Amino acid sequence: MRALVYQAPGIKSWDNVPDPALQTDTDAIVRVDATTICGTDLHILKGDVPAVTAGRILGHEAVGTVQSVGGGVKNVRVGDKVLVSCITACGTCRYCRESSFGQCVGGGGWILGHKIDGTQAELVRVPFADTSTYPAPAGVSDEALLMLADILPTGYEVGVLNGKVRPGDVVAIVGAGPIGLSAILGAKLLSPSHVIAIDKADSRLEAAKGFGADIVVNNSREDALAIVRDLTGGLGADVSIEAVGVPATFELATTLIRPGGHVANIGVHGEAVTLHLEDLWIRNVTITMGLVDTYSTPTLLSLMCSGLLDAEKFITHHYTMDQMVRAYDTFGDAPRTGALKVVLTRE
Amino acid sequence: MRALVYQAPGIKSWDNVPDPALQTDTDAIVRVDATTICGTDLHILKGDVPAVTAGRILGHEAVGTVQSVGGGVKNVRVGDKVLVSCITACGTCRYCRESSFGQCVGGGGWILGHKIDGTQAELVRVPFADTSTYPAPAGVSDEALLMLADILPTGYEVGVLNGKVRPGDVVAIVGAGPIGLSAILGAKLLSPSHVIAIDKADSRLEAAKGFGADIVVNNSREDALAIVRDLTGGLGADVSIEAVGVPATFELATTLIRPGGHVANIGVHGEAVTLHLEDLWIRNVTITMGLVDTYSTPTLLSLMCSGLLDAEKFITHHYTMDQMVRAYDTFGDAPRTGALKVVLTRE
Amino acid sequence: MRALVYQAPGIKSWDNVPDPALQTDTDAIVRVDATTICGTDLHILKGDVPAVTAGRILGHEAVGTVQSVGGGVKNVRVGDKVLVSCITACGTCRYCRESSFGQCVGGGGWILGHKIDGTQAELVRVPFADTSTYPAPAGVSDEALLMLADILPTGYEVGVLNGKVRPGDVVAIVGAGPIGLSAILGAKLLSPSHVIAIDKADSRLEAAKGFGADIVVNNSREDALAIVRDLTGGLGADVSIEAVGVPATFELATTLIRPGGHVANIGVHGEAVTLHLEDLWIRNVTITMGLVDTYSTPTLLSLMCSGLLDAEKFITHHYTMDQMVRAYDTFGDAPRTGALKVVLTRE
Amino acid sequence: MRALVYQAPGIKSWDNVPDPALQTDTDAIVRVDATTICGTDLHILKGDVPAVTAGRILGHEAVGTVQSVGGGVKNVRVGDKVLVSCITACGTCRYCRESSFGQCVGGGGWILGHKIDGTQAELVRVPFADTSTYPAPAGVSDEALLMLADILPTGYEVGVLNGKVRPGDVVAIVGAGPIGLSAILGAKLLSPSHVIAIDKADSRLEAAKGFGADIVVNNSREDALAIVRDLTGGLGADVSIEAVGVPATFELATTLIRPGGHVANIGVHGEAVTLHLEDLWIRNVTITMGLVDTYSTPTLLSLMCSGLLDAEKFITHHYTMDQMVRAYDTFGDAPRTGALKVVLTRE
Repeated sequence: MRALVYQAPGIKSWDNVPDPALQTDTDAIVRVDATTICGTDLHILKGDVPAVTAGRILGHEAVGTVQSVGGGVKNVRVGDKVLVSCITACGTCRYCRESSFGQCVGGGGWILGHKIDGTQAELVRVPFADTSTYPAPAGVSDEALLMLADILPTGYEVGVLNGKVRPGDVVAIVGAGPIGLSAILGAKLLSPSHVIAIDKADSRLEAAKGFGADIVVNNSREDALAIVRDLTGGLGADVSIEAVGVPATFELATTLIRPGGHVANIGVHGEAVTLHLEDLWIRNVTITMGLVDTYSTPTLLSLMCSGLLDAEKFITHHYTMDQMVRAYDTFGDAPRTGALKVVLTRE
Repeated sequence: MRALVYQAPGIKSWDNVPDPALQTDTDAIVRVDATTICGTDLHILKGDVPAVTAGRILGHEAVGTVQSVGGGVKNVRVGDKVLVSCITACGTCRYCRESSFGQCVGGGGWILGHKIDGTQAELVRVPFADTSTYPAPAGVSDEALLMLADILPTGYEVGVLNGKVRPGDVVAIVGAGPIGLSAILGAKLLSPSHVIAIDKADSRLEAAKGFGADIVVNNSREDALAIVRDLTGGLGADVSIEAVGVPATFELATTLIRPGGHVANIGVHGEAVTLHLEDLWIRNVTITMGLVDTYSTPTLLSLMCSGLLDAEKFITHHYTMDQMVRAYDTFGDAPRTGALKVVLTRE
Repeated sequence: MRALVYQAPGIKSWDNVPDPALQTDTDAIVRVDATTICGTDLHILKGDVPAVTAGRILGHEAVGTVQSVGGGVKNVRVGDKVLVSCITACGTCRYCRESSFGQCVGGGGWILGHKIDGTQAELVRVPFADTSTYPAPAGVSDEALLMLADILPTGYEVGVLNGKVRPGDVVAIVGAGPIGLSAILGAKLLSPSHVIAIDKADSRLEAAKGFGADIVVNNSREDALAIVRDLTGGLGADVSIEAVGVPATFELATTLIRPGGHVANIGVHGEAVTLHLEDLWIRNVTITMGLVDTYSTPTLLSLMCSGLLDAEKFITHHYTMDQMVRAYDTFGDAPRTGALKVVLTRE
Repeated sequence: MRALVYQAPGIKSWDNVPDPALQTDTDAIVRVDATTICGTDLHILKGDVPAVTAGRILGHEAVGTVQSVGGGVKNVRVGDKVLVSCITACGTCRYCRESSFGQCVGGGGWILGHKIDGTQAELVRVPFADTSTYPAPAGVSDEALLMLADILPTGYEVGVLNGKVRPGDVVAIVGAGPIGLSAILGAKLLSPSHVIAIDKADSRLEAAKGFGADIVVNNSREDALAIVRDLTGGLGADVSIEAVGVPATFELATTLIRPGGHVANIGVHGEAVTLHLEDLWIRNVTITMGLVDTYSTPTLLSLMCSGLLDAEKFITHHYTMDQMVRAYDTFGDAPRTGALKVVLTRE
């Protein structure tokens, strides 16, 4: 088959590779009908994720059709159209018992395109298929469904639910890339009084408006703290969500928060940050961080079926899979191309 | 009257000062029967708390007898024996409405011995007396009750409840000074499987055993992380509580935690700390911090009345109030004197 | 002044009565600019609420202008436009400390138009004015604000929040009178996948659609249980809300619920109900009930200011206060008049 | 093998039956080393549980040794000593994903000795072995471990955690049979200020004292409501736990509760109860009910290993398995024999 193979920092290729085969009886082999590229894939290509070694097929998001299953697979059948989640769950370990599938210590967690071969390929082996895939409901397009593989549950769980967004809240979201936009969509489900999107790129802020931001702040030229304080009688935001992953944006998120508020970090960080406990120790602030667990995937799927979650607005570019390298170029140059999510399909 | 007056960094005195008077109709004047010294008072004396200005009477903990009340005081009566809490609550602001009295924006919060004159004096003016004092129940000594003015609710709310300690948890407490010991006492109310106390002083670790620590670690010579991991199958503690207030101990607390665990900061920090988000972003860790709200004071009082909270074991030294300066010397030299809490009474 | 006076079961009158006067220093006298009639007032008039005695002025909802305040009132000033809440809060008792103002044991709770004279009058005495009124924000009409005196926080707290409605939930609401409609409005803030309104009157179900119900069921001729089960794969609703107050509707609400779901009772019941524990004991169902606490009033006010809560759609009829008896007639004959909420203003 | 077989209401026998065999690849066959009898088994024998049909082997609690496993079993190995839980979990259904294993809709839930053959036998087939058994830790006796099969997690989850017991609470437990005693043990983990045990049998109340009850009330001759109100300033208990399963005790539990309190039903009810909503609707009471989910089993096991949960005190009688009928006689005549739990071992 053909697949996107990581070779070394900066080097990838769309290659011929052997087809994957069932390795244990709970595996499924899934034909990939649609896949996409994540910001994390760009991090990997920079060499930031040393666990990814030469020869690894990248990608952790897919919608596909089950081609074969191991003898221990109970609920997934050949021919089923399924969502392949970025999180694989063994279903039996301590963490899976507590719905914390992202922290699975039984061989799952984030492994696709990371510790095992991933979804940017014609076929993918999915371990623990019963607990790591979701049946595609009628009436939802492959493309919309694909947004549930990672980006939507990540924004919703790690941003919105960890941040404990409640009706009437003022929610500040630092970063209006795909993950920040996903946090906006998720936050709007809970009727905040104001969502404030903060970014340095006007094009992203324009997108943020389209996703429901009530106020946008370009913090390359505007003072986000002053704007948030003005809106909140000097107190600060009820919730701030970090959706970038660098020290400056984390620090900003902790500055914007009111006493008693929640800072939810979604960003993937490559270096340590400074936490101003000399100011914050007295302010009853809660800071959360984490990998998505995907416990919310069925909920989000239900909302999508009810028309309450318009996922297709993420998709700015379409390619066929053999245009994979071009799709990477488009996605990797988002400031110029305006790419949010690029979708790659079989044909 | 006589009172302990802050003059300048490093300079304090036991002075004659004017008696306090009622300033608004919700004030009470309380005759102080017992007071104590807090680690925060030592910070103030070092000049670390610039809000405290020359001439300020220190102290934010007292048990006393009501001497006079303003016309608007409804529930507190002259002659009542009361606990004067470190937190003053207006009772009507947004934060008081939500039981977050420590964050009161209506003129309360931590003000005694900070923004207004405090309790290390023969008399103290207590604003918002109805919502800032608690009637002393029969059968509880002044000394035991005094421990509810700050240290016990602080350890319980900011350490144990913010940290979400649950039965069966492994709880690591970094720092075995009075606040760390208070966190141990509070944690034991919730039946953790193991409480691990970590400090560099053997004398404090000895005290920690007396307060219920199951395991003590002297991290000047032992590897706390290795010990916690050994105990937890490599995962880390369910809850870690920071009870010191310096960067190294905060960093240790965040290192000891398991994926999905809670880090509760109690320490008063004077400088920024490093947060290793490059390791932690993926681990579903929650970090909390805050000033005590004292919403738990009635609960802790009830536990004290039932004999479930032995507060007197904090008290290592007794003085009369006119020995205030000597009491400060004893408390300020805890490594040598073994002081945990010193109590000062009228006679 | 003129006021609506309860004389005996079935007998009321719009009478001349003495103006109210300040009784304690935390009272305010408020000139009523707008008031309304609640279903509870009809219950009182039937004689169902024995605590209401002859001569009592009814009404527990108002928007008004402060005419005088006692010496202990700190935050409310003469001339302020305020919302007078159905719940009076002492602000200092055990329950008020925990934001459970409806259960106030310090002299508050539901007292207006119940234990003391109420708001269906030209003037009303409001005890504990600082903690029992809310300043009217700019840009919100008296009429919209008036809906926050009782009906909106009741539907939201006792129905939606007690029922723990979450995004994606299927929510069944039994009863589409004003309280049921309020629960619909509140539930929609949390993005349920489906809101099912159940009633025996088509006119009310028509109103329910206007308030956002996705599915309406006339259970005088349709099988609500079958419809809910069809929608939920046989499991039942995630949340069911009882908004009538008779045994049959409560029983229906407990029948519609899925294992693990929440039944939130809002209805005011006059007799015991049957709880089928022989079926339910094994189903992990939670049942809640309660008087509104009004802790959510500031949140709902904020949502109203942001345009996210359209309260005016409740208001079907307008009267001047001297048309009080006619307004009662209209409200009391809702099946014929289609009345939801009637508003009475000074002129 | 030999097993206890249900024949018809009132009729059971210790019979020769065929050995169980693996039916699906996730099954295990476990040799029963210790089993016990539950109050539910007595209900079944009365004919109260129609799902149990003639020929069914009873019993849903065991500690045993794995004799064989299907090809799909990953974590359980032949020779392992395991706890067989009363709840079987498929591990993949909607409810198992949310830790609500008792409500499993994938073929699990309470099935042993109910819908499939149970544990009162020399061998038992355990479906979904990976998610329905727990490895026995070193240092815990078979007998103590056996108490984790049902009674301890039931009292803890359905009574204590559903009832939201918190430190300082007053907890009233109606019924001091094995389940009530288990709720006492569980409640004590959370440091209530007072546990009040209520029963009509002095012998059970005597046992309740041994399990930690602070106050015992014989409600055949004492007024439980008066005693609870006296203790709580007239308010009522913070939590009341129903551990009998008849209308009168449920009604008592709802009477004892304070405004804002929690009533946790554990009892298995055979008929409808009366709920006095005419009194309760205004009191902010929460009522819960449910089958155990066993999500707490690992926690309780950890507490047992730490010596914080003394389970052996439940065990009043020992038999070998071939004395099964005699053991039923003893257990079924608890008022005379004083039986709490009887343990049956191989030899």
